[in-house]
Amino acid sequence: MLRLLPGHESRGLEVLVTTDFTLEGIHFRRDWHPPESVGHRCLARGLSDIAAMGGEPVAAFLSIALPRDLPQAWVGRFVRSLISLGERFGVTLAGGDTAESPNGILADIIVIGTAPKGKSVLRSGAKPGERIFVSGELGGSAAAVLQMRAKPKKKLNPRDYPRHFYPEPRVELGRILREKGLTSAMIDTSDGLSTDLAHLCEESGVGAELESALIPRASVGKPAREVDLDLALHGGEDYELLFTARPGKRVPKQIAGVALTHIGVITRPQIILLRNLKGVAYQLEPRGWEHFRQ
Amino acid sequence: MLRLLPGHESRGLEVLVTTDFTLEGIHFRRDWHPPESVGHRCLARGLSDIAAMGGEPVAAFLSIALPRDLPQAWVGRFVRSLISLGERFGVTLAGGDTAESPNGILADIIVIGTAPKGKSVLRSGAKPGERIFVSGELGGSAAAVLQMRAKPKKKLNPRDYPRHFYPEPRVELGRILREKGLTSAMIDTSDGLSTDLAHLCEESGVGAELESALIPRASVGKPAREVDLDLALHGGEDYELLFTARPGKRVPKQIAGVALTHIGVITRPQIILLRNLKGVAYQLEPRGWEHFRQ
Repeated sequence: MLRLLPGHESRGLEVLVTTDFTLEGIHFRRDWHPPESVGHRCLARGLSDIAAMGGEPVAAFLSIALPRDLPQAWVGRFVRSLISLGERFGVTLAGGDTAESPNGILADIIVIGTAPKGKSVLRSGAKPGERIFVSGELGGSAAAVLQMRAKPKKKLNPRDYPRHFYPEPRVELGRILREKGLTSAMIDTSDGLSTDLAHLCEESGVGAELESALIPRASVGKPAREVDLDLALHGGEDYELLFTARPGKRVPKQIAGVALTHIGVITRPQIILLRNLKGVAYQLEPRGWEHFRQ
Repeated sequence: MLRLLPGHESRGLEVLVTTDFTLEGIHFRRDWHPPESVGHRCLARGLSDIAAMGGEPVAAFLSIALPRDLPQAWVGRFVRSLISLGERFGVTLAGGDTAESPNGILADIIVIGTAPKGKSVLRSGAKPGERIFVSGELGGSAAAVLQMRAKPKKKLNPRDYPRHFYPEPRVELGRILREKGLTSAMIDTSDGLSTDLAHLCEESGVGAELESALIPRASVGKPAREVDLDLALHGGEDYELLFTARPGKRVPKQIAGVALTHIGVITRPQIILLRNLKGVAYQLEPRGWEHFRQ
C-alpha cells in the first residue's frame, strides 16, 4: 500500500512511501523460488506501487528476519538480486533492520519515491465514460503458481515464466502516463484485475464494464500457451498498470515498449460488469489472489 | 535502523526513515504481553530511533501480517494503543500493508521524521575526551523478561514493570539535546548499553571507559528492587538515550523530566573498558540481548 506524506514537499515534490511484506509460505516458497527471484519480486512490489502513482522511486529500506539455520549464501543471492533490480531504476538500498525469525523468511520492503507536487496519480480520479486500459498481459504469474501447485516436486524454469519469477515494474510507463496527463486514476495489478479494478472503482465511487474478448491474456510455459480467462481476470502479481484515460486523450498502442490495451469503460452504477463473447453482461466479483497456500 | 534520505531536503529539513520489526516469539509473547503493550512497544521502537537522531517524528506506516485465527479484538486493541502513543507525539498512522501470516503475528513499523538540514545527531561524532551520558535508568525492561522466563505461567502486572511494557521514547529529550548543541553522538539503548555503546564507538572510531558505580540501575517489581549490574549493562529495550557531550558544554541533571547520568568518557584506544568498584578496569564485551527465545 502506498500513501502520500502530506506537508513534506521538497522543491515542489511530494514524498511517496510504500511498504510491502514478502513472507515465506505466503508470497514465495523456498523450494519453488530461487533466492534471486525472491529478492527481485520483493523490491518489484514496492517499485510497482510507486509506478502506479506515476512516481520516481528514490530509495529502498529492507527489514528482514531470517531463521537461524538459513545459509548465508541464500541471503547473499537474495540481496544481490534486490540491489541489482534497484540499480536499474536508480534506487539505492539505504538501510533497514535485521532480526531473527521464529519461522521462515520474513521481509518488508519500504520504497520512498517522489512525484511533482499535486501530480501523483491516485486511485480515486476515475469518472463515468472514461476508458479503461491495462498494460502488458495478465495471468502469466498465476499460471506459474498453478503449475507449481499441480506438480510441487517439479521445478519450473524461470525463463519460461518470467512474469512470475522476474516481474518488471512499469516505472517508466507510469511516469510517462503521469507526465503526459493521459490518466485520471491508476493502480497496479498486484491482487488481480478483478480485485484491483474493484479497489479503483470503490475509491472513485464509480463502476465499470469490461469486454472479456479484450482482456490481454499472457502466453506462458514451454511450449507457450495462452492462459485461461479466469487467470487473466483473477490471477495476481502481474504488476501491470490498470488505468483510466482522461476524456479526449489519445492513448498510444504502446509506451516504453509495453503494450496498452483498451479493455472497457467506467460507468456510473457502482457495479463491475463483464460482457462475454455472446454480449451477455454478468457481475464480476473480486476474487482475491490466494498465493501459495496449500 | 535509521538512515537519512539524502537529497530530499524540504524547506531546510532532512527526512529520516526508520524501520523495525516486532515479531511474535522474538520481541513479544502473546501469553506475556497484552495487545496494548505490543502496539505501544512496536511504535515506541521507531519513535526512539528518531529521538536518538534528535528528530521530530511525523508519520508512521504499519505493515502487519496476522495468523488466520487471530481474534479481531486483539488487532483492535493493538492498533488503538499504537495510534494512541502516536497521538501523544503528533504522529499519524498514514498507511501500511496487511497480509496473512503463516506463523505468528508479524509487524514492521516505519517512522518518518525530520530534522533541520545537517543537524540530525549521528552515531559517528564522538571524540576522545568527551563525556558519556545516559538518560533514565537501565535494566528495567530486561528484569521483566527474566521474571517471565523464570515463571512463564505467572502474568506480570505491567504497572510494576512500566519500562518493559510501556517504554517512553525520549523524543523531547533527543530534540532538546540537538537544539542546544549539547551532544556530538547519540544512540538509543535498544540492544543494551554494552552493545549500543560498541556501535557508537565503532562508528566514531573511538573507545570508552565506564565506571560501574555510575551506571544508573532501574528499580522494578513489587516490592521494587534495584536490578543487577549485568542487566543494566547488557539488558536491552530500555529505549533510553546514550550520548556524548561536546567539550565545554554543561549537561543539566535532567531535561524534560528525565534524569541524565555521567557514566564515563570517550577514549582514543578502540576498546571499551569498565572500571569496577575496586578501580580495576576490564574489557566490556558487547553481549547481545536475547529477547524471548527459550
